[in-house]
Formats: sequence, structure tokens, C-alpha cells
Amino acid sequence: MDSAALAGPTAVGTDPLPSWRPGAARDAVVAFVDRVRGADGTEPVPVEERVAVFDNDGTLWCEKPMPVQLDFVLRRLVEMVQADPALGDRQPWKAARDRDAGWLASTVAEHYAGDDRKAEVLMAGILAGYAGMTVEDFEQRSRGFLRTAGHPTLGRPYLECTYRPMVELLAHLAASGFTSYIASGGGRDFIRPVSQELYGVPPERVIGSTATLAFAEDGAGGALTHTPVPDLLDDGLQKPIRIWSRVGRRPLLAAGNSDGDGAMLDFAQRPGLPSLRLLLVHDDAEREFSYTTGAEAALARAGRDGWTLVSMRDDWATVF
Amino acid sequence: MDSAALAGPTAVGTDPLPSWRPGAARDAVVAFVDRVRGADGTEPVPVEERVAVFDNDGTLWCEKPMPVQLDFVLRRLVEMVQADPALGDRQPWKAARDRDAGWLASTVAEHYAGDDRKAEVLMAGILAGYAGMTVEDFEQRSRGFLRTAGHPTLGRPYLECTYRPMVELLAHLAASGFTSYIASGGGRDFIRPVSQELYGVPPERVIGSTATLAFAEDGAGGALTHTPVPDLLDDGLQKPIRIWSRVGRRPLLAAGNSDGDGAMLDFAQRPGLPSLRLLLVHDDAEREFSYTTGAEAALARAGRDGWTLVSMRDDWATVF
Repeated sequence: MDSAALAGPTAVGTDPLPSWRPGAARDAVVAFVDRVRGADGTEPVPVEERVAVFDNDGTLWCEKPMPVQLDFVLRRLVEMVQADPALGDRQPWKAARDRDAGWLASTVAEHYAGDDRKAEVLMAGILAGYAGMTVEDFEQRSRGFLRTAGHPTLGRPYLECTYRPMVELLAHLAASGFTSYIASGGGRDFIRPVSQELYGVPPERVIGSTATLAFAEDGAGGALTHTPVPDLLDDGLQKPIRIWSRVGRRPLLAAGNSDGDGAMLDFAQRPGLPSLRLLLVHDDAEREFSYTTGAEAALARAGRDGWTLVSMRDDWATVF
Repeated sequence: MDSAALAGPTAVGTDPLPSWRPGAARDAVVAFVDRVRGADGTEPVPVEERVAVFDNDGTLWCEKPMPVQLDFVLRRLVEMVQADPALGDRQPWKAARDRDAGWLASTVAEHYAGDDRKAEVLMAGILAGYAGMTVEDFEQRSRGFLRTAGHPTLGRPYLECTYRPMVELLAHLAASGFTSYIASGGGRDFIRPVSQELYGVPPERVIGSTATLAFAEDGAGGALTHTPVPDLLDDGLQKPIRIWSRVGRRPLLAAGNSDGDGAMLDFAQRPGLPSLRLLLVHDDAEREFSYTTGAEAALARAGRDGWTLVSMRDDWATVF
């Protein structure tokens, strides 16, 4: 249904990628899709092999000044302090209540420097914030937040912080017989309630991080709840593992923007089949943000590994 | 593609379930599907909510005298002894080499009695058998085995040991807008190579157990390999967790045959939506096998929890 709806522009022969500027990145995308479809005169790739995977934060939507989900969980921490003010003496609740951007920024900076002590404090608080909550309640909270909250500096709702050129690419792939998955380091169940509407990707095709879940039977549906036990983050070397677990195939296209996407991009290669690995470069301080922190290794290996760099500043006519 | 191919019988108005005998089980199946489609005059259930989950061993294909995958792994153990005869002094390689049905039977019996010491020895041997193997090599081995091996007593290839009434049910569901998943306690990657052909269920809709996997990057696709570390078995309370993780919805229909399917059947309920929970009863010693071991708790709760019992002997005109 979604792919039919999204197929419109291609079906009538108009440009499927109007927000992409002419250039090497756009040429690589068009040539890859044409090659897979056999539009270049070669043998088409079987439809069931046409699998694409996309990181979400910083690849499909804006992740600065903080990931959307961090805004979501900070509000939950504040809510917890309101219910139990004693929590406000401890981190991460204190930082959440005081809107202490410095503590959060140092947590991220220390994480990138290899020191995860504060990150673990933050993660433990987040897990406590949802422990015992059913997956249905979590879904409702996520949906409610995403439908109402806005970006802190861009002056637009979060749901309008997706990158238009990437949404066009997803639609072009769907119209070309691809099945696309979101392989996010962020929360799987956080994104699912809006993935169809934002990206044309249904909830069952969202892969991502999660708390460990627990099921308790009651003969009447049972309760599936979040526990305070962390599961492995869907990042770095875990991404190929989770993609295989979910899909049972290697993808032909992978798109990311950070070091945590490197393994996934590496994984998107099949003997004898075309592949496209896209690394989005955040170099557009005017329209979005300009940063390379957390992407240094990915940028360094892109040329050697045959990845296609996509410059937000140069390759995109429109960002949002 | 598969759903169109499978839709034939319903589309032309013929009986979609010719291998089911008239009776309460068949009536429950037909009434449920009609209710979901709105064929009974009620509001149809939205297509995206039409999710069904099926156990595999003993629900979609025969699991006696031993699960198909156990035959597969025993052959791998024998292969290991051939390469390294010293392994033959140790279990489980000794039992595999000597075709020691007694050791294997006692392992299963002790497992059901709550003593997993032998089961852990067997599992460690199995994990060692595939440690370091890439997922692609495992897939090739599984496909090769399933394409050639035959059932030890039924006189037919394993690929013809699927239950025809259940394959008809899967086709009827696909033709009725359902998306079906296989939620197997057995190995996910073992079944995937044949799931489309046997059941019309593509590999990405197979959920099941697996070894822990590891990814190693090499800039040229990387290697995704089995490790000797066990992951959680996709059984019992894990089934609802893995179904949610993969699908992001509760199913409306769940079918199983053992205690390990109880949580999954419980999970298949949604407020305000119809549901069908099927428990297959193996009571047909003549055409298949008659056994209740491992299903005692499920049989005891079926009536209380509103599950529909399907008697292989009484409800199925044809088994294979």
C-alpha cells in the first residue's frame, strides 16, 4: 500500500529525487537503482534481494543539538522527580530537572573520549524511567511526544525534522522494488509509532535498541514490560548482527552518518551484486548543523572502502 | 507474490481448507477469518493488524521421532568425529557416532523432568559444531540437508513432512490479508532457506532460536559467524518477547502444540479485536504420532483460556 502511494512520482516519469542537486552523490544513487532494476540494460536483481537499511538519527532525521529520544527521556526523568522530589538529588534526574546542558554535554563528550561512567549513570536512569511499563504504554507515550514536541532550535515540530532528500530516496527505492529497514542505534519502539508516516517503513521493519523485555502470563493477553536490564545497543558491530537476525539477507544499500554505522555499511556487500554505501556528511551549519564528532573513523575510511559521501551542503537542494 | 499465488482457491470460490474435516476446529478457523475480513457483516480488521504466528516443530511439520534439526546437527557431530576421532570418546559426539538413540532419548526425558545436565552437554556440542561458521555457509548446509534428507520412519522426504491442513491455513490467511510469521523454538536460520517454498513465509518472517553471532569487519563485506555462546531459546516466555521485537504488534492468531507455545498463545489477544489460539493435539498414531509429553500444561489450560483444540485424528482429512 505504502509503496504504491510512494511510487507516484516515478510512475509518471517525473524526477524521483527533486531535493538532490546534480553531482556525484546523486549520480551514484541513480546509477545504483537503475542497475538493480535493470534499467541500464543489465539483468535485474531479483526483487527479494533488494534490501536497504538506514540509520535514523543524523541519517533520516536531525540528531542535534541532542537526539530526539534524549529529549523524550529527559521529560520522563523530570516527571519522575515531580512524583518523587528526592530523586532530584541524584543524577541523571538532577540534570534533567535543572536542564543542565553542561552535564549532558560532558556525558556525551566523555563517551566519545572513551569514558562511559556518566553515560552509564544516564542509561541507568533512563532504564529506571520505563521499568515495569508495558510496551503498549511506552508506544502511547512515544506517539504522544512525537506528535506534539518541537525541535529546540530549528523552529519546527520534530516530525518535520526528517531530511526530505532521504525520504525521497526511500520512496524511490520502494517504487523500485526495494524493501527498506531502519537500523537505528536509537530506540526501536520509540520510532515505530511514526515510521510508516515519516518514512513509509512499517513498524515491523524498524530495527533498533531496546531495554530487555519480560513477559508475564495471565491467561488474558499477558503483560509485556520493560525491565531495568540493558540489552545490547544496536550500534557498531551489533548492526550487522541485528540486520541479519531480522532480514536473513545482506542488504545491497546501507546509509549512515557515524562511526556506529561503519559495520553496517561494510556488511552491505554481496558477491556479484551491486551495492551502495552512503555516508551523510553534516557540513551545513546554515541549514542544519556542522559536526564530525563521532564520525571521524567513518570519514577516514570512506574513500578506501568505496563509500559514497553525501554532503548535506552541496548535494541537497532542500534539507527539510 | 506468494499471497497472490496462494490466493487462488479462495479467489475462485472453492474450499480453501479441503484437508480439514467439518467440525468445531474448522468452524472456529472459518468464523475467525470471516470475522477479520468482515465477511460476517462486521467491520473488517485493518489489514496491518492481521498478524498470525505459528510454531514450527509439531505445528507445521512433524517433530517425531526427533526434531528435523536434531537429525541435521547429529550429522554435523558425526562429521566432526570423522575429522577428529578423539571427539568420539566424549558426549554428545559419542552418541552421534554410535547412533545411540538411548542417550538422546534419555536427554529429552530428563529435560522434561527438569534435569538439563545432558541437554547442556548436547547443546555445547551443537554450538561447537557451528562455531566460526559464517551464516552463509550455515544456510548452504541447511538448504543442502533439507533438500536431500528423508524422515527416518514416515518414508518421505523431510520437505514433504509438513502438515497439509496447516499449509492450507497459511494460504487462506495470506489470501485474507494476513501476514504470518513462524515463531519457532528451533533454529531460525535452519528453517529460513525453505520457509518460502514450504509455507509461503519469506525468510524475514522467520523468528526462532539461534547461536550468538559475531561480526568482524574487513572492508569487503565482513564475516558474520556463529559463536559457541548460546543465546536465549525462542521458547516459552521468550516467544512473546521475540514476536514483539520483530513485529511490533500483538498477533491475532497463534498456533502451537506444546507447553513452550503457551505464552505465545496467551499473547495473541487484543482488546476489541477477534483472536484465535490453536493448539494442535498429536493423537494420530496411525498417520503421524500420538504423544502428549511436553504438552501436558498446555492441554490442561486450553479449555480455561479459550484455546481451540485441533485433533490431528479427528479434524484433519489429510495429514501430509
